[in-house]
Amino acid sequence: MSKNLVPVGLSNRHLHVSREHLDVLFGEGFELTNFKDLSQPGQYATNEKVDIVGSKGTLKGVRILGPTRKETQIEVSLTDGFVLGVKPPVRDSGDLNDSPGVTIVGPKGEVVLEKGVIAAARHIHMHTSDAEKFGVKDKDIVSVKVGGKRGLVFDNVLVRVNPEYALEMHVDIDEGNCAQIKNGDTLEVIK
Amino acid sequence: MSKNLVPVGLSNRHLHVSREHLDVLFGEGFELTNFKDLSQPGQYATNEKVDIVGSKGTLKGVRILGPTRKETQIEVSLTDGFVLGVKPPVRDSGDLNDSPGVTIVGPKGEVVLEKGVIAAARHIHMHTSDAEKFGVKDKDIVSVKVGGKRGLVFDNVLVRVNPEYALEMHVDIDEGNCAQIKNGDTLEVIK
Repeated sequence: MSKNLVPVGLSNRHLHVSREHLDVLFGEGFELTNFKDLSQPGQYATNEKVDIVGSKGTLKGVRILGPTRKETQIEVSLTDGFVLGVKPPVRDSGDLNDSPGVTIVGPKGEVVLEKGVIAAARHIHMHTSDAEKFGVKDKDIVSVKVGGKRGLVFDNVLVRVNPEYALEMHVDIDEGNCAQIKNGDTLEVIK
Repeated sequence: MSKNLVPVGLSNRHLHVSREHLDVLFGEGFELTNFKDLSQPGQYATNEKVDIVGSKGTLKGVRILGPTRKETQIEVSLTDGFVLGVKPPVRDSGDLNDSPGVTIVGPKGEVVLEKGVIAAARHIHMHTSDAEKFGVKDKDIVSVKVGGKRGLVFDNVLVRVNPEYALEMHVDIDEGNCAQIKNGDTLEVIK
C-alpha cells in the first residue's frame, strides 16, 4: 500500500479581521489588498499589517489574512503568548469562547478585543478526493509521523474535508521548530 | 505492568563556559556564583549572564550554567537561532563539530567563538537504578508519549545513564510549547 503523504505549511502569527474591525483599523470601507495567494483556494496574505498589544509586550507588524471573516481571530504561537502576556488556548479555528483579548493597533484606529487570541490546533485540509484516497472523513482525528533527529508522531491532528480545500497540513512555528519541519516538507499520515 | 514515568525539565537558552573564556568575559580568576541548584547533582544555574550576538540579532542576558566545562557550549532553541541569524544543529551535548559560532559579550570582555552553538537533542537523564527499573541502558533510544490537545510521541529520545544523574527528561522551549508541556509534568517512556 502506498503511504498517505501530506505537504506541510508553517503558520506564522497572523490574524483574520471582521469587516467592522477593518473599518476601525484602516478606515471606513477599506479593502484588503492581496500580497500573495495562499494554498487554500480564496485565501490570501494581505499587504496590511497591525500591531498586537498585550499586557506584557507587543508583536509588531502582524499580517492580516484575507478575506474578512465574521469574527476577528488572532492566531499566535505559545511563544508569542509569553511575549504578549496572554495564554492562548489551543483551539480549532472559529472556537473563540473564553479566549483572551488584546489590543489591535492599525494605522487609523485601535480595537480592544474581549476575546479572540488562540493557538491554532494542528490540522490537515483535504480535498474530498484526498479524503477518499486516505480513507478518512471530515473531523476525523489522525496521527502524522515526522522523521529525522527530531522525529516524532503528532497525535490529535484534525482532518477537515471540503471540495474547496487543497491538501495541506498546518502547524505553527513552535511545532515546526520542535520537529525541525520546513515549509513544503512531506509527512506521512498514519492512523 | 506499571508505566515508566519521567518528570520533564524545560531547558531555556543557556551556556556552559570554559575556564579560559570565563577569564576573558568576567576577569582573570573569576568564580561563578550559585544562583540555584539544578536537578542534576553538581550542576547549578549561576548569577552570571552574558549577551549572545549573532549576525542578525542579540539574545540579551543569557544565563551561564556551572561549573565550568572543557569547552564553551551555547544551547539555544531553533527559534533563538532565527533571532541570532545562525542555524544551530540538533546535537547531543559536547558534539560541537561544524556548529556555528557567535560572539559572547561579558562585563569584562568578549569572546568570538568559531563554533559552539547547538540546539540540544532531547534526552533523559537516569540514575543507574532508574535504568534497571525501565529496562534500558546508556545510549538507548526511546520514545516518550505526551497526552492532551497537543499530544504527540517524541521519537529519538537519547537515554543517558549514570550513578550521578537524577531522573529527568530535558526538552527545549520549542519542544515544550509544541507539546504544551510545563516544568515538572510527568511523561510516559515507551519503547
